[in-house]
Amino acid sequence: MTATPRYAEDYLPGQVFNVGSHAFSAAEIIAFSSEWDPHPFHINEEAARQTMFGGLIASGWHTALVMMRMMHQGGFLSLETSIGSPGHEELKWLRPVRPGELLRGQVVVNSVRISKSRPEMGFVNNTATLTNPSGEVVYSLTSNAIIKTRAG
Amino acid sequence: MTATPRYAEDYLPGQVFNVGSHAFSAAEIIAFSSEWDPHPFHINEEAARQTMFGGLIASGWHTALVMMRMMHQGGFLSLETSIGSPGHEELKWLRPVRPGELLRGQVVVNSVRISKSRPEMGFVNNTATLTNPSGEVVYSLTSNAIIKTRAG
Repeated sequence: MTATPRYAEDYLPGQVFNVGSHAFSAAEIIAFSSEWDPHPFHINEEAARQTMFGGLIASGWHTALVMMRMMHQGGFLSLETSIGSPGHEELKWLRPVRPGELLRGQVVVNSVRISKSRPEMGFVNNTATLTNPSGEVVYSLTSNAIIKTRAG
Repeated sequence: MTATPRYAEDYLPGQVFNVGSHAFSAAEIIAFSSEWDPHPFHINEEAARQTMFGGLIASGWHTALVMMRMMHQGGFLSLETSIGSPGHEELKWLRPVRPGELLRGQVVVNSVRISKSRPEMGFVNNTATLTNPSGEVVYSLTSNAIIKTRAG
């Protein structure tokens, strides 16, 4: 949450938000995936070693949620103005995410468009990424955030 | 989980899997979203009534996870052969999901391709949907599942 609400007009193409960092623990990966996405390589260290991943990796959905939370907590979205999203253009799980890796989150504004038919809302197209300590992007999501305008 | 593992060659274009159903409770929506996606319309019934949604709705990420779990539990994926996914072609949150609505999950196989360079794996392109009691699709995800072949 930001101190002052950020309206659609306040987002600028090219603007970069560094929204925080997160390192998954093995316990966190196992607990989440056991509930939602119980692939052996997400829920059992021993079984994971026998797979092509060679060890435990986070569920891609878990990674997506951590990014979502960073977008809230890291100042990209304001609770007062964010109305959600109709979905994604592109979601990529580019590399396995392993326990202990510190992932840094960044959001870049691609474009901002105020709706002609509904001038109280704008579409902030953005690309959110998580980058590992080797500088590799592990997760990338391009989507439209629907954000209230000052006219809203 | 299926009784017998399903390999890439076992998926057929046009094949339909009815993978189960789920109705979100208000408490479930609030608990999940408070942790991951705290928009007012996901975490507070009173605040949600003041928004354009007119009431509490599930986080789209929560909806996506319920679909993922259905794909595991409903027999579309076999834990022995499923290797995950590189991401999505298309993810759409088409309509708000409200507490108590029974959502039915379905997965349709679009195409199956065995990798030429890595014949031990195949790409099962599929579209997964959740449909509400009015027959409206509320969520749609098109993605490639990476599945082991019998050669794997």
